[in-house]
Amino acid sequence: MRGPQHMSQVALAVDIGGTKVEAALVDATGAFLDGSRHRRGTGRAATREELLAAIREAAAAAVGSTPAAVITGVGAGSAGPVDAIAGTTSPLNLPGGAHLDVVGALRRVVPGVPVRLALDGACLMMAEHWLGAAQGARNALAMVVSTGVGGGLLLDGGVVTGRTGNAGHVGQIRLRVPGDDVLDGTLEALASGPSTVEWARSQGWAGRSGEELAVSYSAGDAVARAAVHRSASAVGEGIASTAALLDLEVAVVAGGFVNVAADYIDIVRASVRRHAPLPHAAEVNVLASPLDGRAPLLGAAYLVHGGLIPERTALREADADRRLSA
Amino acid sequence: MRGPQHMSQVALAVDIGGTKVEAALVDATGAFLDGSRHRRGTGRAATREELLAAIREAAAAAVGSTPAAVITGVGAGSAGPVDAIAGTTSPLNLPGGAHLDVVGALRRVVPGVPVRLALDGACLMMAEHWLGAAQGARNALAMVVSTGVGGGLLLDGGVVTGRTGNAGHVGQIRLRVPGDDVLDGTLEALASGPSTVEWARSQGWAGRSGEELAVSYSAGDAVARAAVHRSASAVGEGIASTAALLDLEVAVVAGGFVNVAADYIDIVRASVRRHAPLPHAAEVNVLASPLDGRAPLLGAAYLVHGGLIPERTALREADADRRLSA
Repeated sequence: MRGPQHMSQVALAVDIGGTKVEAALVDATGAFLDGSRHRRGTGRAATREELLAAIREAAAAAVGSTPAAVITGVGAGSAGPVDAIAGTTSPLNLPGGAHLDVVGALRRVVPGVPVRLALDGACLMMAEHWLGAAQGARNALAMVVSTGVGGGLLLDGGVVTGRTGNAGHVGQIRLRVPGDDVLDGTLEALASGPSTVEWARSQGWAGRSGEELAVSYSAGDAVARAAVHRSASAVGEGIASTAALLDLEVAVVAGGFVNVAADYIDIVRASVRRHAPLPHAAEVNVLASPLDGRAPLLGAAYLVHGGLIPERTALREADADRRLSA
Repeated sequence: MRGPQHMSQVALAVDIGGTKVEAALVDATGAFLDGSRHRRGTGRAATREELLAAIREAAAAAVGSTPAAVITGVGAGSAGPVDAIAGTTSPLNLPGGAHLDVVGALRRVVPGVPVRLALDGACLMMAEHWLGAAQGARNALAMVVSTGVGGGLLLDGGVVTGRTGNAGHVGQIRLRVPGDDVLDGTLEALASGPSTVEWARSQGWAGRSGEELAVSYSAGDAVARAAVHRSASAVGEGIASTAALLDLEVAVVAGGFVNVAADYIDIVRASVRRHAPLPHAAEVNVLASPLDGRAPLLGAAYLVHGGLIPERTALREADADRRLSA
């Protein structure tokens, strides 16, 4: 179906996370080239060399899958904090990866094209605005609830990056969950999949994974239900605070842990209404992501294909980039 | 010193707050025309008609002060929430003023020129970026700590307005102040001048005003010192959360209550460092506003004179505006 002309629009998209690196070739319509999506494991125990190897190998496997593809640019999203100016990342969940030279590593895989790095949350927001639940919005939050909690922000029509690329780090805002014995904590510490499983275990539930928690939840287990409500309520409180501060139209919730309960998004919505400190915050439209886990790579591809979102979204390329093209 | 040519650049700037309305004629350099600054009282007991009269009278007094001035536009900042699309405001602290037709009232004072309305916090941010402590910044928060707590945001080089003009409502984010018996509350409820005075009184301090609290603080009164620390710590925690979410370079703190203690800003800074959940948040530069209470009117004037900040900052004029110019 696809000829070489079409392939000239392909981006190499890379997503660097706490448990894996993924890479794929993505065309200007957001389609993934067949067989181009590859992953390598990361994890807390990975050394710097192992992390760089995972990035190189996932990227090279994607590139090698379609020799006829002409890659016009590389876009990478990463767990943060990132340093979008230096082109490096220091993911909180990858202790071996402080100041990881993502742009340098990817430049060696695909020389001679622009390489752009953004926070994974900013990529998520771009994907939801491009092809997901935030299409047409001018003010939105996109959140992921998974191993961690992250996010990105669209304000007055543009995805914001902040001083160093870290705008959108919604997982690190602090909350108190009423009725809980946890007095305060970050949204991530209250709502992530692993935190929720751990909390359920502390209350006597015997399972070990989010998948088991989903089964217990749908079977009506009281602790599993309390645990899911605790996570979704914290997500709602975080959305309410963020919507009050930023006057948002839409909050998109993505991430595997959302599937722990069929009514997870409904619980989030109820919590937003309950916690909204101002009318404009209560009106934010909470939607589930329709992108089925493709959002991080789609957003990374958007760093190359973009255009809908103005200049300030096109993150600066790393200095290494400019030196090489000079 | 000023000839009529110069006067052709004059804006009528209006600031609508919980205790007063102020208006002044402001030229394109930010200078206030001599004798043009006028105020009228508002307050919780004011009726809708009294509030509209205060706006009209303060504006008319400013206009009448300099008959030779040619007014090219009207800019109004208001306590929120505002509805920048409808051109109305519904200040939380003015129960009589729901959906107050600010743009309509000001259009009748100065017919035939654009009338723009923004959140007072957005105006504060514009003023600090134009002539204050955030000059040259691309990512900043400007906060006021006074009768209430408000704010505005500059992100990726532009002041953000949000869906309805209310982006920056930092007073309504929720915090918990460690070591306090208040388990949670909004930043405004924890840090404003009246809240702080009330808290000090609840701890046995006998004064009634922020001015008296300042005297007790400098005399070393233990309760006054605890009260000021409570306010400044909450402000610092709010800045830390906001900086984590938005990756800011600068946080400017303005407002009369900051003068309650010579080291208020130092306490805020220490609290930011203590509460910052991520390194990029701890690096935010906390500065006192150098604008001495002129910021709200300067920011309102900037709605007319602007140009440094891109298009999305130029708030939509109200429909009434467009109908009249059609």
